[in-house]
Amino acid sequence: MTESGTTNVTDQTILQRVTQIVGPSNILTGTDMDPFVTDWRDRYHGRALCVARPGNVQEVAALMQLSAREGIPVVPQGGNTGLCGAATPDDSGQAMVIRLDRMNRILAISALDSMIRVEAGCVLQTLQETARRHGLYFPLSLGAEGSCQIGGNIATNAGGTSVLRYGAMRDLVLGLEVVLPDGTICDWLSPMRKNTTGYDLKQLFIGAEGTLGLITAASLKVFAAPRQCVTCMLTLDTVEQALDIFARLRATLGERISSFEIMNKTQVDVVLQYTQGNTYPFATVAPWSLLIEVTDTLPGTDLLPCVEDALAACMENDLMTDAVITASEAQAQALWRLRHSVSEGNKTAGISVAHDTAVPLSRQADFARLTQERLRAAFPHDPMPMLGHLGDGNIHAVVILNREEYADDDQRKAAIRQINDIVDDVTLSLGGVISAEHGVGQGNVRRLLAGRGENDVRMMQKIKMALDPDWRMNAGKLFAPPTDGIS
Amino acid sequence: MTESGTTNVTDQTILQRVTQIVGPSNILTGTDMDPFVTDWRDRYHGRALCVARPGNVQEVAALMQLSAREGIPVVPQGGNTGLCGAATPDDSGQAMVIRLDRMNRILAISALDSMIRVEAGCVLQTLQETARRHGLYFPLSLGAEGSCQIGGNIATNAGGTSVLRYGAMRDLVLGLEVVLPDGTICDWLSPMRKNTTGYDLKQLFIGAEGTLGLITAASLKVFAAPRQCVTCMLTLDTVEQALDIFARLRATLGERISSFEIMNKTQVDVVLQYTQGNTYPFATVAPWSLLIEVTDTLPGTDLLPCVEDALAACMENDLMTDAVITASEAQAQALWRLRHSVSEGNKTAGISVAHDTAVPLSRQADFARLTQERLRAAFPHDPMPMLGHLGDGNIHAVVILNREEYADDDQRKAAIRQINDIVDDVTLSLGGVISAEHGVGQGNVRRLLAGRGENDVRMMQKIKMALDPDWRMNAGKLFAPPTDGIS
Repeated sequence: MTESGTTNVTDQTILQRVTQIVGPSNILTGTDMDPFVTDWRDRYHGRALCVARPGNVQEVAALMQLSAREGIPVVPQGGNTGLCGAATPDDSGQAMVIRLDRMNRILAISALDSMIRVEAGCVLQTLQETARRHGLYFPLSLGAEGSCQIGGNIATNAGGTSVLRYGAMRDLVLGLEVVLPDGTICDWLSPMRKNTTGYDLKQLFIGAEGTLGLITAASLKVFAAPRQCVTCMLTLDTVEQALDIFARLRATLGERISSFEIMNKTQVDVVLQYTQGNTYPFATVAPWSLLIEVTDTLPGTDLLPCVEDALAACMENDLMTDAVITASEAQAQALWRLRHSVSEGNKTAGISVAHDTAVPLSRQADFARLTQERLRAAFPHDPMPMLGHLGDGNIHAVVILNREEYADDDQRKAAIRQINDIVDDVTLSLGGVISAEHGVGQGNVRRLLAGRGENDVRMMQKIKMALDPDWRMNAGKLFAPPTDGIS
Repeated sequence: MTESGTTNVTDQTILQRVTQIVGPSNILTGTDMDPFVTDWRDRYHGRALCVARPGNVQEVAALMQLSAREGIPVVPQGGNTGLCGAATPDDSGQAMVIRLDRMNRILAISALDSMIRVEAGCVLQTLQETARRHGLYFPLSLGAEGSCQIGGNIATNAGGTSVLRYGAMRDLVLGLEVVLPDGTICDWLSPMRKNTTGYDLKQLFIGAEGTLGLITAASLKVFAAPRQCVTCMLTLDTVEQALDIFARLRATLGERISSFEIMNKTQVDVVLQYTQGNTYPFATVAPWSLLIEVTDTLPGTDLLPCVEDALAACMENDLMTDAVITASEAQAQALWRLRHSVSEGNKTAGISVAHDTAVPLSRQADFARLTQERLRAAFPHDPMPMLGHLGDGNIHAVVILNREEYADDDQRKAAIRQINDIVDDVTLSLGGVISAEHGVGQGNVRRLLAGRGENDVRMMQKIKMALDPDWRMNAGKLFAPPTDGIS
């Protein structure tokens, strides 16, 4: 604390009280705060009064009581792996960042309840591995899983690669423990699947990005572990064909389809050109490629003929041009490696302007066509990969700007905004959402307002006013305070 | 309107305005209101200023604007099939009952989006049948499906017999259209499965029993239709064994298990004694019987050997004493008939005091033992059936009181309250909920407060104050107004 020379007496008193609550080794006040007042991509920068690392829910409650008494703004922080600055404080230097990383215990696991209960700071991968050791399966899986924390996953309603079969984070939450802005601890951890006793309050905190309270623990769904897996890649000419294949496979394979990913030719070309060690399993790169994973909980090998039958019917109906069904785990991993090399490839190729919008499945062909047309008209020469979770309605539209051509800051920012506006415009005109996975944070406040509309934002403000009247919880994230008061 | 001689000038003006909005044939003001100011079981009775039957969402919005201007309390009403009086007005005669029955259109059905979109007044069975005609499956199924409306199902977060595989109503809602207390129409109908743009406002209206606004339409999930079904009944000695069987089956059959129902010996005896045409497929009635249904979306007959293998393993582990797997649809229907005759049997046998509580699966054996012990101590001679959705944690504890012994009103009410208190006590001590399917309405306000606790009720009141500050929407349901104002 000796480094915080700018703090006045009041601030010093607050820091002493925080120290009393979490202990001297769990409060940061100097340059040791640096990693926690900026995001990992170094795009958002803030300052903080301190970073507190509570060890249990009682300490979190005590910190929130202190915050309430002294009017201290609070920024909850999980793994700090977000993309939109939701966990980065503003530059006032007044906020207390509450990091949940010490609260990382597995509290319970019950095969009978199909439930795993963890503290909010538990790293996603730890959770996945714990479930696996118990013969169970926790499906949430995303790029940052080695460092993101489950509390952050819940606060942003995270998605990932298994949403198609198992749903997004909201669908995986059975119960939550939450600390309210006044320090009240809400124990909603009981893993009830049926409940008709009034408002389901925990729903408010899922996807709220810490603006209503702090998530401190969660009871999450786990599933029977998959015991068979068939992975395949198909080539085809149009998104319409991809959607037709999806509908046909699902009509028979049902929920067995766990992933249904798409890439256009530009995307495959970029990966093959700019990353090492990737191969495409066909002689020429098709206009569109599908990567499909089908799993079953039953042991045995009877899934393969079912998938073969379903694909044969698609082939007979001229819905695809070629297909490979992997015969080994290694082959399947090679296909997934191609898919997972997309970010690296796009970043190496230039300035990757990506989007996280989604539209209903029935509008995805329109989405692909309209964004390509309008982006191509504005940016005639830049590569435009498209890729993503077709089965979730979540195709990422990307433009790769040339680094030299857009070296100028203002010119680059203007181009990025123009691209964003085109993609958002098309998305909203098709009944979609401007963010399906990444959230809003501080980076997408303008886009949230455009996407949700004034009426929704006003309702959100009213709910925040009801639960956080001092506007202390993660202010400036999601939406601005109401300018006219709330009637 | 000539019958409403008691209305004053102001009321007459209001009735004229309602008539202008919905048309003269869609407003009831006399004895024709009778069926809609009492519940179908004739347990709750109220009065109303009028019953309005709007034909579209604009008319609903106009009615709510009128309500806001003139301060008219509103009671939304679907099929009026609820068990707790949520759709019955109070006895002030001031409320406008808004019936949604004219708004019963199917708006859209999309296999690709796995979605069916309907107006709120659509009868559940119509929705099921429409999905079926399109080769799809809408899983919600419950006793009142021939007359209950989907808006009411959503407002009470209905359950039914397929929650185990497909979830409760909340899990089936992709989008809602809602009219707020001030008449604002919220169009949240787009069927997005991934959305990270702030608070998921529609969640508030699911299970809110009409206290925050009126649900006017919904986009609902539909699934691939099941093409194989195996139904079986097992006999066993303990609930622990039933839970062990459940865990084993689910580890391999996964989500294929669509129903997992249990009945104790008393329940089977009562059905066999008091209903016609039921048979039990074993020589003697076992302490516990399980009715299990397993379905698959793949055509063929390969599900049967999988189920047989799984059951053989249970038999080898001495988890059951006998089993029948049905060889025909008719045999399966006979088993389900036994299960569905429970209500009729219990009502014929005496005064059936039933409960709708649920506990986590891991506590269900405790629940069965503790309720039986404590109820038996208080009511040594009365039959105590237990039955229900074991796979959902939702066993119904029932006591059948002798009609003659409890003919006295006060004595009967005291006994019922004592039974309720015992079951609620055990339920809450095991981390359960006092209602898993039926809701709160006006009948369970006291039990909601006990079950959820003051803190939760206070949060619900705050949210209601934020969205319905005049407390016009279905007042007196779920919880009472705050006595001290809301800070």
